[in-house]
Amino acid sequence: MTTATYNSSPLRGERGGLRVGILGAAGYTGGELIRLLINHPEAEIVFANSESNAGNLVADVHEGLLGDTDLTFTDEMPFDKVDVVFFCFGHGKSEQFLKEHEIPAHVKIIDLAQDFRLKGNHDYVYGLPEINKAKIAQCQHLANPGCFATCIQLGLLPAAKHGLIQHDVAVNAITGSTGAGQKPAATTHFSWRSDNFSVYKLFTHQHLHEICETLNTLRPADAPEVVDTLNEGFEVADDKVTIDFIPYRGDFARGIFCTEVITLDKPVDKEEVVALYKEFYKDAAFTHYSDKAIDLKQVVNTNKALVHVDVFGRKIVVTSMIDNLLKGAVGQAVQNMNIMFGLDERSGLCLKPSAF
Amino acid sequence: MTTATYNSSPLRGERGGLRVGILGAAGYTGGELIRLLINHPEAEIVFANSESNAGNLVADVHEGLLGDTDLTFTDEMPFDKVDVVFFCFGHGKSEQFLKEHEIPAHVKIIDLAQDFRLKGNHDYVYGLPEINKAKIAQCQHLANPGCFATCIQLGLLPAAKHGLIQHDVAVNAITGSTGAGQKPAATTHFSWRSDNFSVYKLFTHQHLHEICETLNTLRPADAPEVVDTLNEGFEVADDKVTIDFIPYRGDFARGIFCTEVITLDKPVDKEEVVALYKEFYKDAAFTHYSDKAIDLKQVVNTNKALVHVDVFGRKIVVTSMIDNLLKGAVGQAVQNMNIMFGLDERSGLCLKPSAF
Amino acid sequence: MTTATYNSSPLRGERGGLRVGILGAAGYTGGELIRLLINHPEAEIVFANSESNAGNLVADVHEGLLGDTDLTFTDEMPFDKVDVVFFCFGHGKSEQFLKEHEIPAHVKIIDLAQDFRLKGNHDYVYGLPEINKAKIAQCQHLANPGCFATCIQLGLLPAAKHGLIQHDVAVNAITGSTGAGQKPAATTHFSWRSDNFSVYKLFTHQHLHEICETLNTLRPADAPEVVDTLNEGFEVADDKVTIDFIPYRGDFARGIFCTEVITLDKPVDKEEVVALYKEFYKDAAFTHYSDKAIDLKQVVNTNKALVHVDVFGRKIVVTSMIDNLLKGAVGQAVQNMNIMFGLDERSGLCLKPSAF
Amino acid sequence: MTTATYNSSPLRGERGGLRVGILGAAGYTGGELIRLLINHPEAEIVFANSESNAGNLVADVHEGLLGDTDLTFTDEMPFDKVDVVFFCFGHGKSEQFLKEHEIPAHVKIIDLAQDFRLKGNHDYVYGLPEINKAKIAQCQHLANPGCFATCIQLGLLPAAKHGLIQHDVAVNAITGSTGAGQKPAATTHFSWRSDNFSVYKLFTHQHLHEICETLNTLRPADAPEVVDTLNEGFEVADDKVTIDFIPYRGDFARGIFCTEVITLDKPVDKEEVVALYKEFYKDAAFTHYSDKAIDLKQVVNTNKALVHVDVFGRKIVVTSMIDNLLKGAVGQAVQNMNIMFGLDERSGLCLKPSAF
Repeated sequence: MTTATYNSSPLRGERGGLRVGILGAAGYTGGELIRLLINHPEAEIVFANSESNAGNLVADVHEGLLGDTDLTFTDEMPFDKVDVVFFCFGHGKSEQFLKEHEIPAHVKIIDLAQDFRLKGNHDYVYGLPEINKAKIAQCQHLANPGCFATCIQLGLLPAAKHGLIQHDVAVNAITGSTGAGQKPAATTHFSWRSDNFSVYKLFTHQHLHEICETLNTLRPADAPEVVDTLNEGFEVADDKVTIDFIPYRGDFARGIFCTEVITLDKPVDKEEVVALYKEFYKDAAFTHYSDKAIDLKQVVNTNKALVHVDVFGRKIVVTSMIDNLLKGAVGQAVQNMNIMFGLDERSGLCLKPSAF
Repeated sequence: MTTATYNSSPLRGERGGLRVGILGAAGYTGGELIRLLINHPEAEIVFANSESNAGNLVADVHEGLLGDTDLTFTDEMPFDKVDVVFFCFGHGKSEQFLKEHEIPAHVKIIDLAQDFRLKGNHDYVYGLPEINKAKIAQCQHLANPGCFATCIQLGLLPAAKHGLIQHDVAVNAITGSTGAGQKPAATTHFSWRSDNFSVYKLFTHQHLHEICETLNTLRPADAPEVVDTLNEGFEVADDKVTIDFIPYRGDFARGIFCTEVITLDKPVDKEEVVALYKEFYKDAAFTHYSDKAIDLKQVVNTNKALVHVDVFGRKIVVTSMIDNLLKGAVGQAVQNMNIMFGLDERSGLCLKPSAF
Repeated sequence: MTTATYNSSPLRGERGGLRVGILGAAGYTGGELIRLLINHPEAEIVFANSESNAGNLVADVHEGLLGDTDLTFTDEMPFDKVDVVFFCFGHGKSEQFLKEHEIPAHVKIIDLAQDFRLKGNHDYVYGLPEINKAKIAQCQHLANPGCFATCIQLGLLPAAKHGLIQHDVAVNAITGSTGAGQKPAATTHFSWRSDNFSVYKLFTHQHLHEICETLNTLRPADAPEVVDTLNEGFEVADDKVTIDFIPYRGDFARGIFCTEVITLDKPVDKEEVVALYKEFYKDAAFTHYSDKAIDLKQVVNTNKALVHVDVFGRKIVVTSMIDNLLKGAVGQAVQNMNIMFGLDERSGLCLKPSAF
Repeated sequence: MTTATYNSSPLRGERGGLRVGILGAAGYTGGELIRLLINHPEAEIVFANSESNAGNLVADVHEGLLGDTDLTFTDEMPFDKVDVVFFCFGHGKSEQFLKEHEIPAHVKIIDLAQDFRLKGNHDYVYGLPEINKAKIAQCQHLANPGCFATCIQLGLLPAAKHGLIQHDVAVNAITGSTGAGQKPAATTHFSWRSDNFSVYKLFTHQHLHEICETLNTLRPADAPEVVDTLNEGFEVADDKVTIDFIPYRGDFARGIFCTEVITLDKPVDKEEVVALYKEFYKDAAFTHYSDKAIDLKQVVNTNKALVHVDVFGRKIVVTSMIDNLLKGAVGQAVQNMNIMFGLDERSGLCLKPSAF
């Protein structure tokens, strides 16, 4: 096995801290996870697994790590030497992997793929700390939410809890190119994507599954059911509502910027809605209500989510935004790890925003 | 007066062509108008007026004109020497200018500001050729539509005409930075705007006025009235509908990309809607229906508008897009000029798209 | 054979104009060539060959052509029906193609690849109109210059002709991502390239061959020989000079921006150098000397080259720039076509700059 | 006085840590300094002075701080309550400020402006830790180097120390827009700067002063003097050398990417030069030699500098790069603070790179 070695770092915790293994460590999320963990004061990377890159320096593959770590990729998986393992596979591979490999029962699993996000015949807890913190703290296995799903849910949760999802919700979310993964493709070619704009998976993005499941879990008994149109089709009964989600490809690398237009039966006071949102997030470690209008760069390169509300008659317009690789992926995964192991929820996640 | 002189150009029409004067020639739209007209085969610029830049070379002020024209700005306004004058002022200045200056009756006026776009006590025709071509051909005075207004209307017109605007319409439109004009500001600072995203004038953008007026003009008798919430407020009667317009600041310079979600009383076939759209634009010189999904760069640096339709149950999702400086401003103004003077509508407007 | 059909266009010349065939029509340069030619008043595309895309609409493959042309790709090559054929292959394929196919003697060939740019056992003329216009007008076969080579030569030609290349020249040239071609790769992935900067092929870019050949052709007898270090290595005799060329990958799609630092034996007056440059380009159709400092967007989406000179003691700093797809590729190819067929050199090339 | 208050943070050191005051706290460097210090484990911000913003929340002015700090700007300057004060003024104001205000002798000063960078009648130490670490550790007053100056010096220092600066050096450095400061201007307007490229202050950038001074300090007795052409003009004696520096405006927000071409009397082995560079930086906390070619994003949002060397005959081509706001400004300032107060040099500076 290729062992992990580090530069001495003033922030590095004593060895004997949390021991971490990473599977799929050569991809985008794997790289970002390593960038986070090498500065985490209470965790250390024991192995970073990548078959295709075994033996290569992590700093040769992942941008920004030169001089920060001597870690190399390994093709081994010494599960007995770790406390937690992160699955940074592509979607659908986690389940397959678990069928083919045995991971000791005491090793906690944080899966970044979508394989176990929906309720089912498994013990994975949905890792959205804003609603599931207590369960996360107790869980052995965690399914980390999707990036769009995180951003959109954070925009809708307080409204859902208070029965404000009374009609179809119009959701627009613009994502950065890192959301499309590492493999070069026509729609991530710089010549095409720079200064360009387009939509994709209109009304049919797979994150609708987890969004609808959460909204239905939270809603009061008298609020209408949120229909998962991906499962049930677009002929929807009058007493049910839908999430009309349009994903856009933005011409930037990091971030998701989202607007959610919520329609009520009758006009509402802005102050009332704002109060619900502030109350809902008052204890959240990284999700904040902003009294002023927000712009994407406020969260880029941070684990924060910002949420803002405007009201026009019976329409509530929520703006929500995150960094798709952090709060939308590995930042939230580390936040979940912190909760699962009783660490400070913000440990290793007080990041300097890039700002520009 | 500073006379206009040109390089010899193989495309230049014989002098004796249409004689053009430009007021406000040193701003963004003034510059783009000059870029178009120096290659127009049947028009020549007689004067380009700018008080602050009088005597300066146009090519020293406007990017991209070096080697193409020796034209200089003038502070004179020899209206007797022109057939048409373009007002490239900021909004609100056109009306004031006309009070203070006399323009001979035979000189046609094309106003790019919003001063005369709404019906009122004036003879200006609203210059959207897709609905007003015959009137434009006869008019002496023309009010050129706004950029957002053009893009959104082109997305909604066929639906409006056929009574499909039955409920509130969710409109999202992302604009390039040139929409904000030439004057540097915090929200056009490169350090802030690059890779950033934000919204502004939520539900209250001034172009709603002209959009609502057009939609109400087109709608069949049995379709609900479209309420101009800017005038009438957000408490809207149940039998009326609104255009819920969210403008976004995009991190690109040129273009507007728009989605319009139209809700019907009951599900509709996609083929049926597409047929209406194709029929509506079948004779349009620059507005085309695309069978495939569209992306912004297809129209950048052209006078084209592209429109595409998807249908999900009783929701129609329209995507529409233009170049804000061309079809959204001076390109459409030149198109209108061509129509007003009986020239080929496409004259001077067959532009090579930038594509990348 | 799939015949070419067009929209009616006010700029379209009468059929019976120049008949054009395009090989490799589905690539970047093929697409840009089509964008130019569909608006060329004296040429028409007879066939656009692409084996992999045969039968597909050109407008479905190349951005920006929807509504402008009904042309489809063909896998046929009816050379007997054209006056000129453009080779838009990748480098090295032109020579191979000619071995395997017979092109009638009367059909002129314009090759955009590097196969015949250097003097050798062939009759291809090097298509840089600023130095070879008379030969181009007479030639049957033309080798179109490389993009970097065009930009750098236009910066150095007047100096070379007047014996000012007396010491090694420091050349820095930043290129847009379209220079890297259509195929997605790690260095054209938007996530990597946006906001990024890097160098490649330091001192060893293949365009050095054609640059050195031209400079040696132009230099006076008493000026030192320019060594092609790619051929002869980096141990250079004291009485010879080198072009020290650093290519940079820029985070934009279109354009090449270049600085050339020329060192003289002794100080020189700026006025003197500027006069040489102005004289050299006084009759050039698209290359202009700018008295003011220049910026890249002045040439983007045009066939222009701009050149500017500063002098500090015995150092001349030249700034030169072009659009890599136009003056650096197909724009110059069309310019050459115009010259080869006795058309106005600017025909079809009076393009509106994108400016923003 | 407006006191500083913070969120509880797991990384926050015990109060009683280093007490910091910031002057000019509302500008670009002020903001970035605050972003760094709120996560510094051994420092706390006692006051952030800005007259124009006194009473405003820091998080309302500086992007990215919402939810991270409740700090407000103050117009007071309680120097008796701090251990160190940072001057984040514009250039030229520091000297003036010191004439008008008394700062207690025990308070250390870190000046980010250029007022005291050159040797003179003052006790400010030039804060480039790679050469001055011992002096910095002892100093009371420190002048923080310029951004270009840092990047270029880090590329040249090992060569200078070993007498390899034998001829004029060709330096090209591309800077992000944040280098131009917060005030909107024509050359930082997004519409102009996006996808654009230009040069400015050719051969005359003010950072040449500090670069030349350092190079002359380091050079062996037998190496030629480096002439500061800004002071002495461009007529340079044959036995002296110059730094021929071309600054470029890049179309990105953060970072400086630099190439330095060093010409030797005779060819040299690459291994030899690389060994000198590695040796020179072997103990540097943030400056690393990279065996592979480097790209700008490797350092963006970090305090690192990366340096790489290629050799062609008697030419050494160095590539060096930094984040202009961090290693080029406040990151280096905090590094200097750490050294001045005996803290770990990397404290508060182990930043997650943005990478994308």
